[in-house]
Formats: sequence, C-alpha cells, structure tokens
Amino acid sequence: MGTDSLLRGEDMARPEILKCVLCGREYAPEHGRYVCDSCGLDGTLDVLYDMHEAKKLVTKDSLSLCRDMSMWRYRDIMPVLNDANIPALSVGWTPLYENKWLASKYGVRKLYIKDDGRNPTASLKDRASAVGVAKALDFGQKTVACASTGNAASSLSGFAAVMGLDSYIFVPEKAPAAKVTQLLVYGANVVLVKGDYAKAFDLATAAIEKFGWYNRNCAINPFLVEGKKTCAMEIAEQLNWEVPDRVFISVGDGCCVGGLYKGFRDLLELGLIDKMPKITGVQAEGSSPIYKAITENSERVRFGPADTIADSISVGAPRNWAKALRAIRASEGTAVTVTDDEILSAIPELARSSGVFGEPAGVTGFAGFRKMALAGEIAPDETVTVVVTGNGLKDIESAKRSVGQALSCAPDIDEFSRLIDQRRTDK
Amino acid sequence: MGTDSLLRGEDMARPEILKCVLCGREYAPEHGRYVCDSCGLDGTLDVLYDMHEAKKLVTKDSLSLCRDMSMWRYRDIMPVLNDANIPALSVGWTPLYENKWLASKYGVRKLYIKDDGRNPTASLKDRASAVGVAKALDFGQKTVACASTGNAASSLSGFAAVMGLDSYIFVPEKAPAAKVTQLLVYGANVVLVKGDYAKAFDLATAAIEKFGWYNRNCAINPFLVEGKKTCAMEIAEQLNWEVPDRVFISVGDGCCVGGLYKGFRDLLELGLIDKMPKITGVQAEGSSPIYKAITENSERVRFGPADTIADSISVGAPRNWAKALRAIRASEGTAVTVTDDEILSAIPELARSSGVFGEPAGVTGFAGFRKMALAGEIAPDETVTVVVTGNGLKDIESAKRSVGQALSCAPDIDEFSRLIDQRRTDK
Repeated sequence: MGTDSLLRGEDMARPEILKCVLCGREYAPEHGRYVCDSCGLDGTLDVLYDMHEAKKLVTKDSLSLCRDMSMWRYRDIMPVLNDANIPALSVGWTPLYENKWLASKYGVRKLYIKDDGRNPTASLKDRASAVGVAKALDFGQKTVACASTGNAASSLSGFAAVMGLDSYIFVPEKAPAAKVTQLLVYGANVVLVKGDYAKAFDLATAAIEKFGWYNRNCAINPFLVEGKKTCAMEIAEQLNWEVPDRVFISVGDGCCVGGLYKGFRDLLELGLIDKMPKITGVQAEGSSPIYKAITENSERVRFGPADTIADSISVGAPRNWAKALRAIRASEGTAVTVTDDEILSAIPELARSSGVFGEPAGVTGFAGFRKMALAGEIAPDETVTVVVTGNGLKDIESAKRSVGQALSCAPDIDEFSRLIDQRRTDK
Repeated sequence: MGTDSLLRGEDMARPEILKCVLCGREYAPEHGRYVCDSCGLDGTLDVLYDMHEAKKLVTKDSLSLCRDMSMWRYRDIMPVLNDANIPALSVGWTPLYENKWLASKYGVRKLYIKDDGRNPTASLKDRASAVGVAKALDFGQKTVACASTGNAASSLSGFAAVMGLDSYIFVPEKAPAAKVTQLLVYGANVVLVKGDYAKAFDLATAAIEKFGWYNRNCAINPFLVEGKKTCAMEIAEQLNWEVPDRVFISVGDGCCVGGLYKGFRDLLELGLIDKMPKITGVQAEGSSPIYKAITENSERVRFGPADTIADSISVGAPRNWAKALRAIRASEGTAVTVTDDEILSAIPELARSSGVFGEPAGVTGFAGFRKMALAGEIAPDETVTVVVTGNGLKDIESAKRSVGQALSCAPDIDEFSRLIDQRRTDK
C-alpha cells in the first residue's frame, strides 16, 4: 500500500481547487473548508485536480503494472497529501462478478455484481472513511466525527482506531445492534441520538463545530466522495476500460451516486474510458426524495420523511442532493424506487444466484435493476453493473425476515429421513 | 480466476495419492474415498502431488507474475481437476497486516495479523468450501452436505449456491442466529440438530451415507485441507518467502492447524521456504482435547465435553486430531488454552489496534499469542503471525459482551456537552 516516499509532493496530481457544485465558486482545499460560503450546506464541493499532470501519472499502462490491489492504486488522483497518513487497512479492489444466470433471467446482455461488502468493515463506506481519516491526519487533527445510519460510522471508527485517532459517532437510536456493536468494538465514542438520522446529523454538526473535530460527514466533507469514486474506477478497470451501459446503486444521502459519477468523469477526463454509464439511483419507497426530484424534474430536493427497512438509505434529508441530481441527470440515468418487500426478496435471490449476501440497502440496487428489467425498461443489449454496498451480516434481523425456517431434527437418521420425505411431499 | 484451458490435464501437478496420516497406507484419489480403510475415521488422508512436476510450475517467478489475487494462484498444487468447477467467488489472498504497536506491547520482533474474515462468507472456511464444491463437481455430484458449528456451513451453502448445487447443512441447535440466517439466505437445507456438534456430525455422516451426497466435512474429506493450506502459502508469499518463526491459530476440529502445516510443508518441498514455522494451536479452556493431548504427550486424543463462547471451536471430538497433533509436533509448535474472558477481551483489543474485528474463535489465536507473550514464552526476537479465522459480524451477541455501552443523548448540543463533561469527570 502507498508508495516509496513519504511526501511525494512533486509527482502527483494534488487537489487543486474545491468547486461548488451549485454556483461554481472556487476555494482552496484548506482545513475547515467543507461547503460553499454562498450556497451554504447545499453547496457541496467538487475536488478538482491538475488533469494535465494526472494524465501523465494515471494511465492504463501504469495501472496494469500496479500491484497495489486496493483503492489506493488510484492514489495519484486522490486528495491525500502524505502517504504516511493512508490507513493500513486494505480497502477496495473488491470483486466484480459476471453473472450469466441473472443476465439471462432478466434479459440483459451482461450483468456484473460489484461486491463492496468485501471491504474491511464490510461496506462501501470504507472507501470514504479511509480518505477521511487520511485527510484528518493531513490537517493535523486528532479527533474525527460523523453522523451516520451505521455503515459510515463503523467504518470511520475502524479506520480511526487503526490510525490512533479518537472518534465520535452520532447514530439514530434505531440503528441496528450489529452496527452499534461494531462501533463500540472499535473503541469509538458512540452517541445514540434520540431521533432520526436528520437529528443525529444536526447534533453531530453542532458538536463538530463546538469542539473543533474533523468532520467526516460524507455529504459535507468534499474529500470523501473522492474515496467513493474509486468504486467506479475499479468497475472500469476490472472491465478492461469497457464501462457498462448502466450502473445501479442504492441512494441515501446521495454520496454514492455522486461518487460513481465523479469516478467515471475523472476517467473520461483522463481519457481512460470513452463514455459515461447511465447512473441509476435506487431508493426505498419510504425514503425517496431524490427519486421524487428526478421524476418531478425539480431543481432542488424537498426533504421529507424516511421509513424503510434499509436503514443505510433511510434518509429523508439527503444532504448531498446536488451531487446526486447531477450524477443521475448528467449521466442520462434515472431514479427508481422499490418497496421494502422487494428489497427483502432481493437478499436471498442475489445470495443464491451470485453468492453475494447483502444487507437491505446493499441489495437495493439489485432490487431496482430487477424491477426495471421486469418492466422492460432496460434494453436487451445493455451491459449492467449492480453495486452491492454492504454485507448482509450487518443486519441479520432483516435477513431473517427474507427467508424461511430451518428444519429442526433429533440426532436420528430415521427421523431425518421422515423429515426429508415430508418436505418432498409438501413440495 | 482460473486459467485459460478448461481441462489442463498435462500442465499441472494432479493429486497423485491419498496417504493415511496414521499408518501411511496409500489410496487413489477417487470419489468416495474419505478416510483410511485400516484406521477408520481416525485415519484422515494427506493429498500428495507429483512434486517433480509441481516444482516446475509453482515457482517464485511464476507467482510474482500471477495476477490471480485469490487462493487459486496456487492452483497448480491444488487437487481440483477441472477449472470450470472452480467456484466464481473470490477466495483468499486476504490482507496480512504488520502491527508495530502490538509487536512492541507484547515484546516480539514483528507481528503480522492475517485477516481471513475478509473471505466471501467471512471466514477461513471459504478456502475449504471452495475446494469442496469444486471436488463435488469434479466427481459429478449434485448435492453437498456437512456438519458444522456455523462457518463451514455458511461457507458451503454460499459456494454451493453459486455453483448450482443443493446443500444440506447439519448444525447444532445452539449455533448463532447470524450463521443460521446466512445459510438460509444462501438457500441451503438447514437441519438444526438437537444436540451438540458431535451429534450434528454423526447425523450428517449417516445422512450422507444414506443419500449418497458429497461429504464436505473437513475432518473427513481429504481435499478440504488443501484449501486451508493456501492460508499458509499466502502468509509465506506475502512475507516475501521469509516465513514467521511462529503462527498462532485457533483449534477446533484440527483442520486449520493441519492446513497450515500442509501448506508450509508443501512450500518446503517445493523449495520456496527454508524452515517450518512453529504452529501454535490455541483452544478455549472449555474445549481443549488437542491441548490436553499435546501437554500430556498422548499418542491419541481423548474426546471430551465442549463448552465455550467461541462456537466455531466448541468441539469436544476433534475428528482431525491426527493431523492436528502432527502439525503441532512436527513443527515444534505448542498448544495453549485461553478462557472465554480472555477471548472476549481480545475482540476489542485486536479491533482497536489493528482494525480487524474478529468473532470469538476468530480472535482466539490472538488471545493465545497475548497469553504466551505475557508469560514470557515467546522470545523477543521472534516474528509472529496470528491468523484471524472469522469476522466479528458473525457473532454480534458475543461482541456485545466484550464492550461497554453507547451514550444516549437527546438531539441537543447542550445536553451533549454536559454528557461529555460528565464522562471526562468520570475518567
């Protein structure tokens, strides 16, 4: 991981400017700069690089020789200043599986499943947390904090722990026990906030300001999307730079769709790919403000309630809405919603056909793909990639609801034989 | 994954013979051959290859060029006949992290953590299941079965699902819900056996014989240890062929220590390493028949009760005892026990210092390392590798017992500030 010298300085494309996604105003990438002064919290910032320099460093040849099988293989177009600040946990370069059976069942040319549950703390959020912790260290900070429905939190606490930082994590009180336990195991200071994600977010923001901690909220911190973008870069490289026609991913805050878009856009600017995949954001019906803005063709997103079993995307106030809308619109993608039942039934179908066990939000992208395919909204010659954003072990209670019961049997072969016969008769 | 041709035949070191670990009697590697005719269930079999052929294929050079970042990079010295039967789930090549902080704290020269919880179904057992499913297909079988305390089961069901095989899984009724749910998600036929692991094992054996299924019980099927051995091979290759002085791993059935030993022994025979690490098996105090046999210097293992929080190694009747004793003795290693409290406290310590969150059996190797180091039983110039065998998300209930509580707070910055002040005062 990382490269030879500690401070490379000269030979990488440092982040040059931060640019507001709404008004285009530019800022230096300094500590404490999170959003646009003019647009406030809505004005999240893009990280832009010296592309002239980056083109020399990030090439198909250089990558084909790169033995760093982690997201840091794209380090030359990532915002971390000091290699020593890169956390020593192997993130990214998660498997991308072709699935012919599902492609045939749902009538698309090719289907690929990207299993981002294979990251260190078992979700795609690790890509963002790794960058967040590195930036905290770049800026000399000792404490990091975030609000999270769970995955960003466990991820941040894991990366903070390994790099010796303190972490404060604000989670809504309804966060699944598995996720909260993971935080405590990593030694985070965990604050269960009485209320929903929006309340947790607001308290985190207030505490971060009051105590001067480093802010890892993905929808606020411009550098974190730069971690998430590597998921798109890996998809492209793993497909030998022939990007899919369409990518499905679940949408909560909007950072993941925003990250995919940024990744593909960087690759386009580097000349490594020649088209932008249609980015298709999938939301749960009970938490779908991005979907509503897309279908109603609104310029802004109206915040609303959030109620879905897929806790990781149960977000009524998606703070990164501007990047999300841009990602979907600029890529000519779309948004779709699925019910909680559709999410739950996607868990065993995906696991049984691909071996990938996702949490509810993890398989929501697949549920959306399935729904659009069955509605005839995907052309049969399309190549599709579905991103699974988190491991099913994160939320066993929901997974339980998606499947039947085990057989119970005495340790006796005759009783077992009778049970099996009975079962066959029932079928 | 895999290589170009489907049936390579000529250019790999096929398994030549199966040889009884007790009496040395040899058998052809045919379908249905699990153990030695003379020695019965105790006589588990080693898989031996044409080492003359293997030496030409498995070299430092060939491996340094190999881009298959999975355990199948050692495919030329693995028993699978047909590449098409290799399951399309990326197993192995899990991270090996150096940890200077822990090395210094516990007074060893170097400490490496191998995180095998990063496998597809989140445990080391995936290495065995991948081979088991491939061998079932090599032999034209349609149904696989095993008894398991949990991990082998979820692993087998995942790999069977992705390759279109039916699976029957026999688990003791006390197996953690997370593991049982994972089985059901993958579509396995799950049989909760009223009794302990030994009862589940016996019923599985009877059912496998009665219905003619392929037997994935690791302690019976000689090919499965060939999957587990790749963990040792990766440790060696990741350390640039300078193997550690000592390797710690938890012991249940005895297959993992047996697998490590086989992997290092194959590498020695191939001339890729020049010494055998001391293999140190760690058992839970309440389930320690291997430990007893080693300390009492017995030729055989006396089966006994099993009671530990570390369900994956709660095995009173370790079926692969012969390979386990040989691994520890021939490597000049040792066995050690740890209490359940020592196992539980190892979970947060390992997570906070390395970012690796293990289940109870997963961190038992680390708990044993810690205990021996604190007792002064490891020389300060030793290099040590600890294998973490399974992910902590598999057993959240145990993890909960290893940590304190989260703070609960209204969404109000003043209340939060008071809480923080209170906490600081308490400390």
